[in-house]
This record gives sequence, C-alpha cells and structure tokens, in this order.
Amino acid sequence: MAGNSENKPGRTVTSKVTALLDAFSSTRPELTLNELARITGLPLSTTYRLTTELVDWGGLERVEGAGYRVGLRLWEIGSLAPRSTDPREIAMPYMQDLYVATQENVHLAVLDGHEALYIEKIAGHTAIEVKTQRGGRLPLHATGVGKVFLAFGPTTLLDEVLATGPHRYTPHTIVAPGHLRRAVQEVRRTGVAVAREEMTLGTVSVASPMLNDNGQAVAALSIVARSSRADPLRLAPAVRTAALCASRALNRLHRKDQI
Amino acid sequence: MAGNSENKPGRTVTSKVTALLDAFSSTRPELTLNELARITGLPLSTTYRLTTELVDWGGLERVEGAGYRVGLRLWEIGSLAPRSTDPREIAMPYMQDLYVATQENVHLAVLDGHEALYIEKIAGHTAIEVKTQRGGRLPLHATGVGKVFLAFGPTTLLDEVLATGPHRYTPHTIVAPGHLRRAVQEVRRTGVAVAREEMTLGTVSVASPMLNDNGQAVAALSIVARSSRADPLRLAPAVRTAALCASRALNRLHRKDQI
Repeated sequence: MAGNSENKPGRTVTSKVTALLDAFSSTRPELTLNELARITGLPLSTTYRLTTELVDWGGLERVEGAGYRVGLRLWEIGSLAPRSTDPREIAMPYMQDLYVATQENVHLAVLDGHEALYIEKIAGHTAIEVKTQRGGRLPLHATGVGKVFLAFGPTTLLDEVLATGPHRYTPHTIVAPGHLRRAVQEVRRTGVAVAREEMTLGTVSVASPMLNDNGQAVAALSIVARSSRADPLRLAPAVRTAALCASRALNRLHRKDQI
Repeated sequence: MAGNSENKPGRTVTSKVTALLDAFSSTRPELTLNELARITGLPLSTTYRLTTELVDWGGLERVEGAGYRVGLRLWEIGSLAPRSTDPREIAMPYMQDLYVATQENVHLAVLDGHEALYIEKIAGHTAIEVKTQRGGRLPLHATGVGKVFLAFGPTTLLDEVLATGPHRYTPHTIVAPGHLRRAVQEVRRTGVAVAREEMTLGTVSVASPMLNDNGQAVAALSIVARSSRADPLRLAPAVRTAALCASRALNRLHRKDQI
C-alpha cells in the first residue's frame, strides 16, 4: 500500500492510527506514550508523531502528567453512528417510562458480531449496581438482551454461537445446545428473554426486542435487577410493553420516511 | 512529515483519515465516496483506499446503496472520552430525578472551546421538541448551560466570548457587553442561569453548574421548556437542587480517589 515508509512493511499509517485508538479501553482510559508504543508495537517516535497529530485534531487529549485519553472530538463523531444513535433516540422515552414504573436499571443493546453492545443505560439510586457500561459488550447466550438477538436476529446466529462453544460463566449458564435452542424457541414464543444468574450470580435480566417491520430485532431493551428482589414474572410485561411501544415508534418513523 | 507520498505535500495520512471522519455530521450522517472525496479534497483513489481501511476496522460502515456512515467501533471508542463519560455517569441519576419531578427535557453539557457541547439529553413524551442533540453544540452567551460556563468556567472566558462579538439569534439575545457581564454576575450570585428565548423563540432554558471542589463547572445541567408554559422561577430550584446533588456525588467520588 502507498503512503507507508515506516519500518514494518505492510502496516499502513491508517492501521497505525486505528491501533493507537484501539489501545484505549474502559479498563485503560488513560495511557502514557510508552504504554501506547508497547500496546501498538510502534516505535516511540512514530507513536509520538501520530499521537501529536491526533491531539491537534481533538481525537485524543493530553492529561496532566504524562498521559493521553480519548478526546471530545472522537466522542462527537462516534455519537453520529446511526446503529447506536437511531435506536437510542427512539427508545429513550420508553426506557424512561420503564424506569419510572420499575425503578430498576434499564439497558439498551444492539447486536455487534457475536456480542451484545450496550448503547444506553439508565441507572437509579436504589437499583442494583451492575458492571455493564455504555460501550460494554456481553455474550449473547448468557444475557437477556443476547437471547433476544439469538431469537430475533440473523437466522444463522444461534448456530454460529453454538459452534464457538459458549462459555459457562456461572453454574446457571445454559451451554448445552439442545437446552439453549429450547430457551431461544421460548423467547420467540413469548417475546421476552430471561437470564437468571447466567452471567453474574445475584443478578437477573429480563429483555424484549425492539422489532422492525420485518420482525428483526434492531435493538433489545432490558431490566437488570437483583435476583433476590426481582420477580421476572412481574417485570416481563413491563419490559415487553416498553419494547413494543419503542417498536411501534420505530416503524411509525420508517413508514414516514417512505412517504 | 514522514510517511506521506501522496499528491498534496504537507498533508499527512493521519490528517487525511481525520478529514474523512470530520466529513460526517448530524446533517450529513451518510456520505458516498464521491461526496467524501469532494468534502475532503482528496483524490477518489485515496478516498477509496482510506475508506476501505476504515470500514475493515469498523470505524466506518457501508450502507446499502453507495453510502458510508460512522460505525459502531468509533462510537465505542468515543464512549471512552472521560470528559463526556465521567460527568454523564455521575449526573444521570439526578437528571433522571429532575425529569421525574418536572417532566421537561433535561440536558447535560460540557464546555468545549467557546461552545457548549451537549453530552446527554432526556426527552419526555410531552416535553417541547428541541433541536439540541447529543453531540450538538450551542453558543455560550445565548443558552442557560453556556451562561453557567461563562460564570463558573475559566476566568478569561467571558472576555474571549465578548471579543468575538456575540451573535444576536433573536431579539432577546443579550449581546451588549455590559448587559452580558451583569447577567453573568447574577448567575454567579444565584447559581442559576436563565435564557429566555435568547437562542430560539418560544423556548426557555434554566441551568445550574455541576461544580468540582475548586468551584469550577465541569458540566452544566439544564431544563429546556416551552416559554409559554414554563415558569423559570418554579423550575430554578429543581434544576439547582439536581445540580447540587450531582456536584456532591462528583466530589464524594474524587475524595474517594484520593484516599
């Protein structure tokens, strides 16, 4: 490829820039120049030059001391991603309603590859503390939102997940193919997915799909609550109602687009 | 600079990549290859090569037809920006409370340069429709959150804004230096900023700062309501209370960090 006169042949400047951005994560929100060089495998001089350009642009910011962090400009551009922003804008008022009605954590996730990517989270004062973050990812087979995508996502998704050998996170995680298939079938029938302590002990999630006109899940809405306190049977109708309202709003919007 | 064998001397690959990302905006969320080339001034071949690399990475996504849009990977990395994520995580439960108590639009903004950047928005079903979007920017002198930053932001900010000659958006926009100085002084005294139809006719915003231990605003919380319906005198104590609660939570957290 052109434009690459650096030491590692075949590694383009673009790939170096994206490697620098990829180095940041929720567990590594601040990195020094040395750390950036080590994680990306780039020479310190290249790391310095590219990082300086990214700081000038606003995509990275210098922190007091010697560190760098993701900058507001990247947040701003990232906020334009339609696959995150569109379902969120539509679902938010209904997530709001669901929070007011239940006072529990309300989450919104989209499917990305074989994972559920959490794009929004409403957390109350009294709700259980959950590890899930906006931008966080969780596996499909062990979460409420994930099972929603297995039931209402691409038809080959369940087979693909089973082929990877789903991980057992707790003694309650469903990993047996037959068992998981039956669970997903039940989600298709009821429109609600429940995950009882399958990802984290002490936590239950209840989820329902935001469906487009073709019956495909564009997002999944869920409540995550303390399993000792929450009754999934009581929460399910509330989650389903909010998800149906959001689906209706989504399809109203799309029909308007077509006129 | 090194690594640049392209046609325009002095233009680095990094700057071309960031120019491609900068081409997207809330009014241009989808762009074709031709549009990208035109907006960035890059040759079509370079545009194609860099765009393909960004798609492979996940920062851009192909849309049915001929378009490109911002991808989930950029959203994910952008979500790591501490200047957006940290105040949001802390303020969200209190924004929630404020919404439940008032049923009006609740916004959260941070200062970026000479603008207020909106990082969160809670919109109800019955609240007034506002143009403000997450990731949107509004001027400091004509908005509630902006006046909060003029009062509780960097000490030179007001002078800098006055030096640029503030724009008159409506007949109610305060642009006279003496008048604006007095208004900002009043915000410092009361802890609440009101903008009555100063940005948009028919809309009033009431804002209050989320203050750190040094009394500097790290963010501003506001309600945006229909001016015919809303009484700023009634909303002000609610906004201030929520902002004080969020400030307290912020400083509790920081004190914990220091232990």
